[in-house]
Amino acid sequence: MAKLKMGLVGGGEGAFIGAVHRMAAELDGEIELFCGAFSSDPAKSRAAGPALYSIDAERSYGSYAEMFAAEGARDVAERMDFVVIATPNYTHFPIAKAALEAGFDVMSDKPVTFDLAEAQELAALVEAKELTFGLTHNYTGYPMVKEARHLVRSGAFGGIRRVVMEYIQGWLAEPEEMSGANKQAEWRTDPARSGAAGCMGDIGTHGENLVEYVTGLKIASLCSDLTTFVPGRRLEDDGNVLLRFDNGAKGVLFASQIAVGEENGIRLRVYGEKGGLEWQQMEPNSLIVRWSDRPYEIRRTGGPGVSPAAAGATRLPAGHPEGFLEAFAILYRNFAATLRARRAGSEPTEDELDFPTIADGVRGMAFIDTVVASSRAGSTWLDFPAV
Amino acid sequence: MAKLKMGLVGGGEGAFIGAVHRMAAELDGEIELFCGAFSSDPAKSRAAGPALYSIDAERSYGSYAEMFAAEGARDVAERMDFVVIATPNYTHFPIAKAALEAGFDVMSDKPVTFDLAEAQELAALVEAKELTFGLTHNYTGYPMVKEARHLVRSGAFGGIRRVVMEYIQGWLAEPEEMSGANKQAEWRTDPARSGAAGCMGDIGTHGENLVEYVTGLKIASLCSDLTTFVPGRRLEDDGNVLLRFDNGAKGVLFASQIAVGEENGIRLRVYGEKGGLEWQQMEPNSLIVRWSDRPYEIRRTGGPGVSPAAAGATRLPAGHPEGFLEAFAILYRNFAATLRARRAGSEPTEDELDFPTIADGVRGMAFIDTVVASSRAGSTWLDFPAV
Amino acid sequence: MAKLKMGLVGGGEGAFIGAVHRMAAELDGEIELFCGAFSSDPAKSRAAGPALYSIDAERSYGSYAEMFAAEGARDVAERMDFVVIATPNYTHFPIAKAALEAGFDVMSDKPVTFDLAEAQELAALVEAKELTFGLTHNYTGYPMVKEARHLVRSGAFGGIRRVVMEYIQGWLAEPEEMSGANKQAEWRTDPARSGAAGCMGDIGTHGENLVEYVTGLKIASLCSDLTTFVPGRRLEDDGNVLLRFDNGAKGVLFASQIAVGEENGIRLRVYGEKGGLEWQQMEPNSLIVRWSDRPYEIRRTGGPGVSPAAAGATRLPAGHPEGFLEAFAILYRNFAATLRARRAGSEPTEDELDFPTIADGVRGMAFIDTVVASSRAGSTWLDFPAV
Amino acid sequence: MAKLKMGLVGGGEGAFIGAVHRMAAELDGEIELFCGAFSSDPAKSRAAGPALYSIDAERSYGSYAEMFAAEGARDVAERMDFVVIATPNYTHFPIAKAALEAGFDVMSDKPVTFDLAEAQELAALVEAKELTFGLTHNYTGYPMVKEARHLVRSGAFGGIRRVVMEYIQGWLAEPEEMSGANKQAEWRTDPARSGAAGCMGDIGTHGENLVEYVTGLKIASLCSDLTTFVPGRRLEDDGNVLLRFDNGAKGVLFASQIAVGEENGIRLRVYGEKGGLEWQQMEPNSLIVRWSDRPYEIRRTGGPGVSPAAAGATRLPAGHPEGFLEAFAILYRNFAATLRARRAGSEPTEDELDFPTIADGVRGMAFIDTVVASSRAGSTWLDFPAV
Repeated sequence: MAKLKMGLVGGGEGAFIGAVHRMAAELDGEIELFCGAFSSDPAKSRAAGPALYSIDAERSYGSYAEMFAAEGARDVAERMDFVVIATPNYTHFPIAKAALEAGFDVMSDKPVTFDLAEAQELAALVEAKELTFGLTHNYTGYPMVKEARHLVRSGAFGGIRRVVMEYIQGWLAEPEEMSGANKQAEWRTDPARSGAAGCMGDIGTHGENLVEYVTGLKIASLCSDLTTFVPGRRLEDDGNVLLRFDNGAKGVLFASQIAVGEENGIRLRVYGEKGGLEWQQMEPNSLIVRWSDRPYEIRRTGGPGVSPAAAGATRLPAGHPEGFLEAFAILYRNFAATLRARRAGSEPTEDELDFPTIADGVRGMAFIDTVVASSRAGSTWLDFPAV
Repeated sequence: MAKLKMGLVGGGEGAFIGAVHRMAAELDGEIELFCGAFSSDPAKSRAAGPALYSIDAERSYGSYAEMFAAEGARDVAERMDFVVIATPNYTHFPIAKAALEAGFDVMSDKPVTFDLAEAQELAALVEAKELTFGLTHNYTGYPMVKEARHLVRSGAFGGIRRVVMEYIQGWLAEPEEMSGANKQAEWRTDPARSGAAGCMGDIGTHGENLVEYVTGLKIASLCSDLTTFVPGRRLEDDGNVLLRFDNGAKGVLFASQIAVGEENGIRLRVYGEKGGLEWQQMEPNSLIVRWSDRPYEIRRTGGPGVSPAAAGATRLPAGHPEGFLEAFAILYRNFAATLRARRAGSEPTEDELDFPTIADGVRGMAFIDTVVASSRAGSTWLDFPAV
Repeated sequence: MAKLKMGLVGGGEGAFIGAVHRMAAELDGEIELFCGAFSSDPAKSRAAGPALYSIDAERSYGSYAEMFAAEGARDVAERMDFVVIATPNYTHFPIAKAALEAGFDVMSDKPVTFDLAEAQELAALVEAKELTFGLTHNYTGYPMVKEARHLVRSGAFGGIRRVVMEYIQGWLAEPEEMSGANKQAEWRTDPARSGAAGCMGDIGTHGENLVEYVTGLKIASLCSDLTTFVPGRRLEDDGNVLLRFDNGAKGVLFASQIAVGEENGIRLRVYGEKGGLEWQQMEPNSLIVRWSDRPYEIRRTGGPGVSPAAAGATRLPAGHPEGFLEAFAILYRNFAATLRARRAGSEPTEDELDFPTIADGVRGMAFIDTVVASSRAGSTWLDFPAV
Repeated sequence: MAKLKMGLVGGGEGAFIGAVHRMAAELDGEIELFCGAFSSDPAKSRAAGPALYSIDAERSYGSYAEMFAAEGARDVAERMDFVVIATPNYTHFPIAKAALEAGFDVMSDKPVTFDLAEAQELAALVEAKELTFGLTHNYTGYPMVKEARHLVRSGAFGGIRRVVMEYIQGWLAEPEEMSGANKQAEWRTDPARSGAAGCMGDIGTHGENLVEYVTGLKIASLCSDLTTFVPGRRLEDDGNVLLRFDNGAKGVLFASQIAVGEENGIRLRVYGEKGGLEWQQMEPNSLIVRWSDRPYEIRRTGGPGVSPAAAGATRLPAGHPEGFLEAFAILYRNFAATLRARRAGSEPTEDELDFPTIADGVRGMAFIDTVVASSRAGSTWLDFPAV
């Protein structure tokens, strides 16, 4: 079976996330990086394919527009199968729109657009075009996240009462964006390129998505206190949010990029009437499951007693750690399976459809809008938009 | 040197905390449980001394009033040296007031009184009587909590920016207070005996105290969302609080008694400009210290490189775990040293004075007042009272 | 009920272990430190009681012989109830012998004597005198060690196949005994005071005892490789031992006092046909229990689902860490209950008898003999003596 | 730059390790799976390429001999660049020999051959042919293993004194090989296909290699106690080994496949005169570093303060877990860089040469020989062969 051909937008020199996409997409042998427009500078873009990705020069385009046009003009068997968007936030929308309009399925970095209106417009376009749109809320790809979701869904915990969602990093504790040497910091702290939020857009949205993915609950309202700790920074680098969910559950979500010494500290805790769970991205292959009436358990990637959902996202025997790339690759695997099914005219299975989509993107943008608005209004309670 | 003689109010049959006070107070060989009024039922009270604590019948009183009168009438060398209050919240104030008025120093359980007004009245009385008043915010007794405080004070972290304080338990996830078999649950969920708050009074105040003890910051304002999850319960069993500190730092404090499967999950994280720390009560002999520019460290009770403050609160060589009782006993040790110094007419050292006092009690009651008021007012921001 | 009166031999100025015995013995309110002979120097011995332990001068004796004579001459109601021996190894035997001959029950530090012959003579004397002899293999007092033993005994794991017992410390990585400032190091590395082994006598015997206590197996033969790493040291400071058990199980036991940076690293792992367990003294309130067919569990001190044996050795609710002293105190609690039962003419229960005795002491000395002999003979296999 | 073309021997239907090799080899975009001989059954072999790996039918050969002949006959630019051997042990030698004789560089699974004589013959052939031979002792690819090695080499710990190497699994606790459904278990427990050892060949050799890689020491002699616990099994499934190193250091190495509930429990501890380290494969991104005079550190993959050796083996920022495949891929990355350098006529750098080679393979076979011989001789001490 031929590999699906992926066209990458972004991922040029110094853009770490491009290599991540390549490694994740290709991991399961279902996809190959085939062509790309790697930079907004046409010359750099054309040079990057051969230099960075062993891609033929003719498939290394000067711009995404050029790529969509050229690839779209080829025979289906010879052309790119889908587009990956790995660029700063403010470019997601135009690129995605152009890709969809050119008839290409899309896998995009998050947050999905610059603002909510763009996201909603994109959602309408996806629907109109009947195309597939994936979004790299990659932490949902971990087997133990799927186990967590399975456990909640199974009803084993009874109704969910309390959630603690945290995502803390320390890499922006200093004014990195003013060092002249950190492009990642530059655009992520620039309101013109990042959007209305800094920390909350970059990592808070991962938290929002993870909570809703695992619990199946929807945030109903929130109260947010965002802070810019580093002098001169233009977007918030830290935030605390009180959450109320549609079923009456309560929660806190906090995210920070100034928590010195923290690496990529994602931790989710969920407590129901009869049990609860805890998962940490830094030790992703363990899931702590707590019960009221018996010792707590550690469920393990590849280990005994886990659900088919978790086992199906596992490649290696227990004790052979799977990490960030493997989880990221699960999104690509499911996205690819969905594409193949749809192109074959069949309905993808529920498992194949298990990847974040434009709907998650819309909720993420609504989350950003709401936390920013709440904080600006003096940290008052706001309803989550009906999206 | 003769041991200090302690008179215990409370701690009768089935009252777990009485045994804790005895074990903690006597641990260092400086104090002996000498007399007591163990129950509000005079007959039970008199019976408890010999039955539970190997105390002579003549020192096992029918009531605290009787004890204060009888002990107060004895020669100083023969009488009780101080009073310990280990009873439900609503009785703290009258007992403490009576003890102080009878001229006795006091060590009291927390929260210090039923409401803020009582606490302030008590504070005035302590000052007027020139007596010593200790409060069992016992978690401050751990060596690694003292190390944490030392690190913040030393300036090693620079200014403090963010705090996460959590205290989560699961023992009230079911309606224990309606089982007829759980006295602890009964009074703690009864507004007439516990006070305005349930979870926040019982454990949230520990969190508030621990944060202020370690960081030296004061809560300036807060926004609180309290919830009663168990149907029929009369006080909240869960709460999330956004915090703003007097130096501009931000934080979250959450406490729960319905977090199924959690035992006594106290965890404090503090992040400054240049470093941060993390401490968990369930593994109390380790302190994680994080830096921006070098690998993180684990400081250990009894281990190399810790401060005199931590070393001074340590009894055993590294690797010989000290636990809850040992930390609790540090409060008694310092309290006893303060009493001895004052009775000898000398000024206690800063280390000897290192135990929570009535001032902590007043802040604790202000915290309870404020979180309850905020939540009742629709979870709005309220300033922390100037106490 | 009157407390049992304990007479302490050893524990003078600078002798850390004396304070440990006092704290542990008194923790449960069943025993009081009543008299003592605290030093081999009569003047220091007499001074130590009032100075260190708030003991009356008349009960602070100049020597253990004096104490045994004087206390033995008093009325039973007024005299010491039992003797605690907390002195260097070479003195255990003469003190214990004298105590038993004077009619006193004994709680002794380990290893029980200087050599196996002494231990066997002592065992005969204990039997002849019909007295109670306890030995402070204190790590068996932890609730989770009792849970481990319960699990093995219950048959849940099937037959036991493999054991890993380790006890590693780093405090003798440098020649502490030559510093002139470390008495503990001096006598522990002196063959005339410590016995035939250093590390293996001091901590290896704890390992041997713990393995046999938990598994119920007996070591049948062993092959030992002992090493003195620190130049000039006179006893081994490190050893690795292959074990074969009476049921065909295999194991390794290793102990070290030169494992730099290790504190008091006791870890026991046991694997049977259907499950296994892991316990670490440094996190003593957790027991990892592994199964072939389901997620592994963490059983917790005070937590749900543990055995009566574990629950009975627990004083605090789950999540209130119990540590070294609390475990040590369980030996005293059971020893005291046994004394009370026997003095009341009744048979102690199995739970009351759950403390190490002279029989454990004899096996410990046999272990020392055998590991030393094996290593000296070129690390060959030797049968464990039939003791 | 064109990718290196890899020809895979083995990895057919149901052979888990083939997919591992593909994922690891292709991860860094330097290598592509190009052709293969996937089964000893020619028809299955030919079918597997297209079915499992998206390989053209013409590059999916019926046998490795056919592949070597066909590929060898092509132009250099069009042919396979190197051979990967991912087959049961007894076939490694003939395949490797044939590959080398056909002029191909080789990356082989471990243990390198069926017995020591074969390994030595292969070593001579590698040298004679001036070809590159890599061996998948993949655990040496972890960044924190490289950090460990760096720390020892740097002299920060002083001379090394003690090593504890463990590798414990539970997957063979039952007679899996008799179930008819576990091919991995079948050949691994079959002396005709696995070699003289079971557990020690399969995983013990990883331990031996890891110890020597990290410490730079050589095992000088050993005493081994191997056991077959599962009735009817034909090779040992468990073993304990005492080690003596060439510098006087001592150690234990134990490996088991019947440690129920253990997954892939590799843990290495090394102690020197001034410090020590601990690494666990199951939490591979942390390295515990212990010191005598200061708190211990946790060094982290991607974190601050690590060596260039560790940083150079890291692809992601700290906190983005890298796992088994990423470590495995480091071997391929270095192997590929070495091939490229040599083909370009230049000398590979030390970093490029940092992968296990035939020399490691020879020592591994010597280890197997020696542990088996020692155990058979009654667990006596044997010198490690001078290989």
